[in-house]
Amino acid sequence: MHPFTDNTADLIGHLGEKQLLQNIRQWLGSSAPPSPLGMGDDCAVLPGEKRHCRLATVDALVYNRHFDDSTHPREAGTKLLKRNLSDIAAMGGFPQYALVGLMLPASLRLEWLREFTFGLRDEAERWQVALVGGDLCETKTTLGGHLTLLGYAERALLRQGGQAGDSILVTGDLGGSLLGKHLAFQPRLREGQWLAARNEVNSMIDVTDGLLKDLPELIPPGCAAGIDPEKLPITEAARQCALSSGKSALHHALGDGEDYELLFTIEAGTDLDNFIREWREHFNTPLKSIGRLTTKSREEPEGEIIDLQNGKALGLAGGYEHFRKA
Amino acid sequence: MHPFTDNTADLIGHLGEKQLLQNIRQWLGSSAPPSPLGMGDDCAVLPGEKRHCRLATVDALVYNRHFDDSTHPREAGTKLLKRNLSDIAAMGGFPQYALVGLMLPASLRLEWLREFTFGLRDEAERWQVALVGGDLCETKTTLGGHLTLLGYAERALLRQGGQAGDSILVTGDLGGSLLGKHLAFQPRLREGQWLAARNEVNSMIDVTDGLLKDLPELIPPGCAAGIDPEKLPITEAARQCALSSGKSALHHALGDGEDYELLFTIEAGTDLDNFIREWREHFNTPLKSIGRLTTKSREEPEGEIIDLQNGKALGLAGGYEHFRKA
Repeated sequence: MHPFTDNTADLIGHLGEKQLLQNIRQWLGSSAPPSPLGMGDDCAVLPGEKRHCRLATVDALVYNRHFDDSTHPREAGTKLLKRNLSDIAAMGGFPQYALVGLMLPASLRLEWLREFTFGLRDEAERWQVALVGGDLCETKTTLGGHLTLLGYAERALLRQGGQAGDSILVTGDLGGSLLGKHLAFQPRLREGQWLAARNEVNSMIDVTDGLLKDLPELIPPGCAAGIDPEKLPITEAARQCALSSGKSALHHALGDGEDYELLFTIEAGTDLDNFIREWREHFNTPLKSIGRLTTKSREEPEGEIIDLQNGKALGLAGGYEHFRKA
Repeated sequence: MHPFTDNTADLIGHLGEKQLLQNIRQWLGSSAPPSPLGMGDDCAVLPGEKRHCRLATVDALVYNRHFDDSTHPREAGTKLLKRNLSDIAAMGGFPQYALVGLMLPASLRLEWLREFTFGLRDEAERWQVALVGGDLCETKTTLGGHLTLLGYAERALLRQGGQAGDSILVTGDLGGSLLGKHLAFQPRLREGQWLAARNEVNSMIDVTDGLLKDLPELIPPGCAAGIDPEKLPITEAARQCALSSGKSALHHALGDGEDYELLFTIEAGTDLDNFIREWREHFNTPLKSIGRLTTKSREEPEGEIIDLQNGKALGLAGGYEHFRKA
């Protein structure tokens, strides 16, 4: 069967990435077990030894999608690993082993590949990750690859675990990542490990598609999330983007994606001031409380994000979504 | 840096895959530990629990390289997993968990993706592999992906472990894989597990690049391998290929690749007739003794493959090699 078609009714671009993933998981049936063992969280949580569980995650990096001609190849190399490190961080885990599959056109500069590899090496050394497996595959034009990262956690922090009344917090600040942070970000591994060791933290995700797309993953059934836009930590880059885009800095902070910050919930009744004070003893990374999980009111759709200042739904065109053409 | 160049002196296509892999491992330095923990065998062998070690391997599948328009998408889906299963088989291991990263153009037929996914599912169910992780990435034109397969072994059979005097055996028959076996092959998992449980079997690899390219991996330092061409099991497909290629069926059996058969050594002094008799009690898969590891004579280059019938080097243009343009 020829794989491609011009008939828009039949092509995958007709669906968004989310719908496509749902289809694939449905087609896979029982061979794809549900989260936490299987797909649906930042990492798969596999049975481990002693009191540890094992973590596994896979992520891609592709030329002209995740980096371009303006990117130093070392930064592209670090980014391939850092995207996966951020997934391990979002579980509160420790990274250990990486396997890298690269797709390379024969016309690739050897120097580019060397610098890319150096970037991968530098980031692996920084976190003591061993690169234990690899595959090279020649392609006609696509330059990119997949990295599978294996690790472990003493307590794996899942996306689901919060409940109505819990506070919502986020590390760092959000928006405008394309101006540089999408390459320069530091995966929040130490922060994630510290958070997973705190029992009052009960759910976590990393912000990759934009707060408005990632936060719903933390909302339990029958609940909504209330966010105070004035409390949202906004990058200087988001304000810069707003100057030229005609959109607000808030819009960029909510929807740009590639922030690689940790978004998590803390159970109701926790002394937040004290929690943040303890955080500051360990980290320079900013930490802000931005809202709370709520029981949804009858009018609100499930999983909705509400503006706490006016009670209305917080929405915009949405975070970045692959594939969708319409 | 723009990644591509027309200057042949500077592009990766100037090197073959083997040299390129050597370069990458050198650039990675100590972040890429040597085999068996790291790259260099069919799987990475990671520390495990109890008396088990853990296995991890990654392999690619790309349109117009590993399959084409004539391939049913279900066969493409099974092949992505089977290529990795064959690597686990080559260690004598048991597969457990898979993570799949797909690169898909937006113009892909939804029906193609569904059938591909069904193929992946069917093969996963056959071997009770759980698909626990996935990633979708949009590309302009490349259709393909990487699968990382995790498993375990009680005794991981490495490529290095044989010595001069050992017999060389191969399962199934070789050559002409492009006529169908490259899609229809059965990964030799049960066979590999049985072999790893036999102490007299001391090294193993799966034949993916052709016997002449894969056998050298089993030859220990200071040794050579003697092969009796008349004993080589040759497929009917290799004979068919020979009719149109102008090359011999033996040439195809030695160099075509994608056989996915197990090639292994048995220590000197083993009663081979008895070994093969026991094999036949368990498997219908053919098994043949085709030669032996020898101490290399002074004139022979290390790692050479010798024709036992005339004492000359067995060579041809070589198995398939990615990237190389010259």
